[in-house]
Amino acid sequence: MRAHEAGALHAEGYGGPPLWLPTPGDVCALMPQLWARTVRRSEDGVLEIGGIDVRQLADRFGTPAYVIDEHDFRARARAMLDEFAPAFDHLAGLDVYYAGKAFLCTQVARWVHEEGLGLDVCSAGELAVAIRAGFPAARIAMHGNNKSVAELEAAVRHGVGRIIVDSDDEIERLARIATEQDADVSVMVRVTAGVEAHTHDYIATAHEDQKFGFSLASGHAAKAVAAILGHPRLHLLGLHSHIGSQIFGTDGFELAAHRVIGMYTDIAQLHDYVMPEIDLGGGFGIAYTSQHTPVPPARMGAQLAAIVERECRADGVPVPRVSIEPGRSIVGPSTFTLYEVGTVKVVDLDGGAQRLYVSVDGGMSDNIRTALYEADYSCTLANRYSTAPARLSRVVGKHCESGDIVVLDEYLPADVRPGDLIAVPGTGAYCRALSNQYNHVPRPPVIAVRGGEARVIVRRESIEDLLALDVDA
Amino acid sequence: MRAHEAGALHAEGYGGPPLWLPTPGDVCALMPQLWARTVRRSEDGVLEIGGIDVRQLADRFGTPAYVIDEHDFRARARAMLDEFAPAFDHLAGLDVYYAGKAFLCTQVARWVHEEGLGLDVCSAGELAVAIRAGFPAARIAMHGNNKSVAELEAAVRHGVGRIIVDSDDEIERLARIATEQDADVSVMVRVTAGVEAHTHDYIATAHEDQKFGFSLASGHAAKAVAAILGHPRLHLLGLHSHIGSQIFGTDGFELAAHRVIGMYTDIAQLHDYVMPEIDLGGGFGIAYTSQHTPVPPARMGAQLAAIVERECRADGVPVPRVSIEPGRSIVGPSTFTLYEVGTVKVVDLDGGAQRLYVSVDGGMSDNIRTALYEADYSCTLANRYSTAPARLSRVVGKHCESGDIVVLDEYLPADVRPGDLIAVPGTGAYCRALSNQYNHVPRPPVIAVRGGEARVIVRRESIEDLLALDVDA
Repeated sequence: MRAHEAGALHAEGYGGPPLWLPTPGDVCALMPQLWARTVRRSEDGVLEIGGIDVRQLADRFGTPAYVIDEHDFRARARAMLDEFAPAFDHLAGLDVYYAGKAFLCTQVARWVHEEGLGLDVCSAGELAVAIRAGFPAARIAMHGNNKSVAELEAAVRHGVGRIIVDSDDEIERLARIATEQDADVSVMVRVTAGVEAHTHDYIATAHEDQKFGFSLASGHAAKAVAAILGHPRLHLLGLHSHIGSQIFGTDGFELAAHRVIGMYTDIAQLHDYVMPEIDLGGGFGIAYTSQHTPVPPARMGAQLAAIVERECRADGVPVPRVSIEPGRSIVGPSTFTLYEVGTVKVVDLDGGAQRLYVSVDGGMSDNIRTALYEADYSCTLANRYSTAPARLSRVVGKHCESGDIVVLDEYLPADVRPGDLIAVPGTGAYCRALSNQYNHVPRPPVIAVRGGEARVIVRRESIEDLLALDVDA
Repeated sequence: MRAHEAGALHAEGYGGPPLWLPTPGDVCALMPQLWARTVRRSEDGVLEIGGIDVRQLADRFGTPAYVIDEHDFRARARAMLDEFAPAFDHLAGLDVYYAGKAFLCTQVARWVHEEGLGLDVCSAGELAVAIRAGFPAARIAMHGNNKSVAELEAAVRHGVGRIIVDSDDEIERLARIATEQDADVSVMVRVTAGVEAHTHDYIATAHEDQKFGFSLASGHAAKAVAAILGHPRLHLLGLHSHIGSQIFGTDGFELAAHRVIGMYTDIAQLHDYVMPEIDLGGGFGIAYTSQHTPVPPARMGAQLAAIVERECRADGVPVPRVSIEPGRSIVGPSTFTLYEVGTVKVVDLDGGAQRLYVSVDGGMSDNIRTALYEADYSCTLANRYSTAPARLSRVVGKHCESGDIVVLDEYLPADVRPGDLIAVPGTGAYCRALSNQYNHVPRPPVIAVRGGEARVIVRRESIEDLLALDVDA
């Protein structure tokens, strides 16, 4: 169903559940791949995280709330180093940069640092979070298709480890700033390889109709490289390629690596310069529903290492050090959103079917991905176990818009009722990060659970916060 | 093009401009229906609003900024009373409620009050804005499919003039609260009439697969009416129907009115109760591009009055007092967003075409409608006049996402360059209201212009504001 202010002219799709959603045997059973490591049902059937009953979390912190399993986040971050990276040990090694755009706050930046990862930022704001967290600037990478002069100046002043340059305008600006600040600046060149990947598909073109980077096919990337090599204060680390999101296969990476590494060879021949690094971006998929089976980090690492090695050997260039930028695959599954049910409505559909509309106390303000990307989510009854029959349900928010849907299709127990708690897993990435205050609904807090303790790492907004920007004169 | 985190698997649509976008003779000419009343180009070709040069606004307030023409807003609000409403004078009259969800802040609530309109709110937050603005509670209507108990209690305590009830759960809650507070509460019943309208289309079904209201066809609406009539502290004003958004025709309203007024007749017969009011909702369309020709308020008013009168006469029921809820049609065209260009990139497309990618200093954080609804916008070079040839352009933001597009297709002068200002009209509705802090980009201010004076009515966020919710322990 397409998001639509009018509520979608959606005559199609009325009625039954989607094909990928089987009627569950136990409607309260948890699919392990959707949930953070310490989430389970207690003996009395209540959802718990890190040993804490979600009813306690709701009582103490209110709903809605994002609940992040700190142990899970750290474990997924570490797995990128311990399981993904080793395949690159016999080559030139691998660096992992956590993509802060998925979700960033001061505490999370600290966790990322403590687990030994680097950090991607893409604005002065994200850089400010990193600095406040004490993140070593040398291990920060800065992205962005339109970094302002102020942002570039701040990045150079703080000594950010690498800046991924994205346009001719930026190369000029950065060279000027580096000269002004008497600084050497390491850069990568964002290239478009004509590959766009998503889930199990990718498309290959020569050119890409998008805003990022320099095109390989048009020769723009080669010109950018030449320009950077001509600036004494800019140090060229290599090329950066990012092909998509929610990717479960490696075909797209293979084609992109083939094209990008082809350019390493060209540059080595033309400029007698061997670029020491390559960045393959992020986009590793996670499970939102039973449709998705994530690739374990060890396997993805082995496959990417084999691709890079093969392409370099074929071209006769040294294998560069590789970096990757996982965001969603680290933070996404670490978090669920806890809502309270406010109303339950049985809606008759044309053709005699019915759908349970379960309204919760949040919605498109705390998770706009369902409306924005037609994203599928799952959910479960959290505060109790139910043996009631499974009913086809739609979990909707409290906003004045019919596209305000949190979970489009899910089975919930037929006895779900106001006051129940609903947990939606996989909301760690691009939910709080894209959250808004639509209808003047304050944004939920982020509650971190670790070692049986829960604490607020991003506090709940108040209505006073919402009014704070209004100038009343 | 579909919004997509991966940047859309969008092989289709590469290349040329859409059919509705003709190559302009003068690429800097303004289409009057897109712009607020006081916007024009000065003699030297610079965009001005209320006589103020946009370069002055950019210097004084920075970019990006929403710039609202207070005169235009007030004129459009007044037009609903002066031009739309008179057609109802010979019937039982018309009330206009400004739909605060489109855009609300303290100042705007004051303007709405001063111009004599009522105000729709749909949350405790919007109610708080209204109260702070001194808006008379009796002229506030409260909406929402999942109002919390706290929100209902606040609405009753403040003496909100009408509450549009949306579920059985809510009727019970509200009756309890009315009794507890010893208050009489006027309510309308939100019904779904099986009509969804958008632009020039509508679809008619028996049932609607959506979260709002009580279905007429299923009998749920009739049961809700009976329940309300059975509660001594609830006073039933009538039925409320909202059929869609961006509507340019009246066919959808006609069918909805036919079905809803049919129920007035049923209720009069069954309960011997003539409901005194009806609310037809909002959804009146505005022009975002040359594709759209808004219906003048006088004509829309005359058409709706004729429909309501005809349906009531046919059913032999008295014509109720009508209310409508325009939001977008008042605030949408009053506002443009002023951006500064940061980078300009010529991107080769497959097939030999090219597109100018113009990156501005905002994006999907200040206007998510393009990504969320595939909404079309227009724009113009604002800080100067150019006689350069028209180039097919895409205005994109600074966010780390390829779906971060502000204006999908527009002609701009080929010499557009960093430092130029771009103005995007029609951003008054659902832009600031849905704004987010993606990538930790602070949200723009709202600058009101009136009588040659500009002032801040919503201040710009700072990076400190963005960090204020982080708990640093």
